[in-house]
Amino acid sequence: MKESKINLCPLVQKGMDLISKRWNGLIIQTLLTGSHRFSEIEASIPISGRLLSERLKELEKEGIVNREVFSEVPIRVEYSLTEKGLALTPIIREVENWSKKWVSLEEAE
Amino acid sequence: MKESKINLCPLVQKGMDLISKRWNGLIIQTLLTGSHRFSEIEASIPISGRLLSERLKELEKEGIVNREVFSEVPIRVEYSLTEKGLALTPIIREVENWSKKWVSLEEAE
Repeated sequence: MKESKINLCPLVQKGMDLISKRWNGLIIQTLLTGSHRFSEIEASIPISGRLLSERLKELEKEGIVNREVFSEVPIRVEYSLTEKGLALTPIIREVENWSKKWVSLEEAE
Repeated sequence: MKESKINLCPLVQKGMDLISKRWNGLIIQTLLTGSHRFSEIEASIPISGRLLSERLKELEKEGIVNREVFSEVPIRVEYSLTEKGLALTPIIREVENWSKKWVSLEEAE
């Protein structure tokens, strides 16, 4: 039992790191509602454009977010979750459940 | 839809912050197997005693970990999950599932 737990450690920590980095959870939560333009994500999260752009690039590199460019005039760029990103849905939902039950909003704000 | 998402933001981020802080996930994962003495937790996670002690104090303050002192000679101290801590089980399990499927061990180590 101990052994299998130790074998899992680096995997789980890596997974935790990915999804828990500040703002990543909220970006993923926003993209769970469908694909969005940069400005739409920016409007729904209290985060600077520079930081949002940085996080989206990281999530794209990790294969969690897909960036699609539509060659229209003006050019349109949309972000959505990849299959790997969509697979995070149960985690986000469980964090929502837990937070709603156990975290008080006063503490959180 | 947007509005309810935005209301949830601080709650979810606070929940994420709590469980995702480096090592907390692994400490919680270890305590899911039952209550343990400090030295047992220390032996199962590659973390310094000083850092483990710091994290356990934080988790105790957040009401996630319970610290029980048994007045024996020598004194025995055991750590276990509270009800709030045990309620994290589904999140940890979902992170395990996701990591096993989507994170490669080479990347993680």
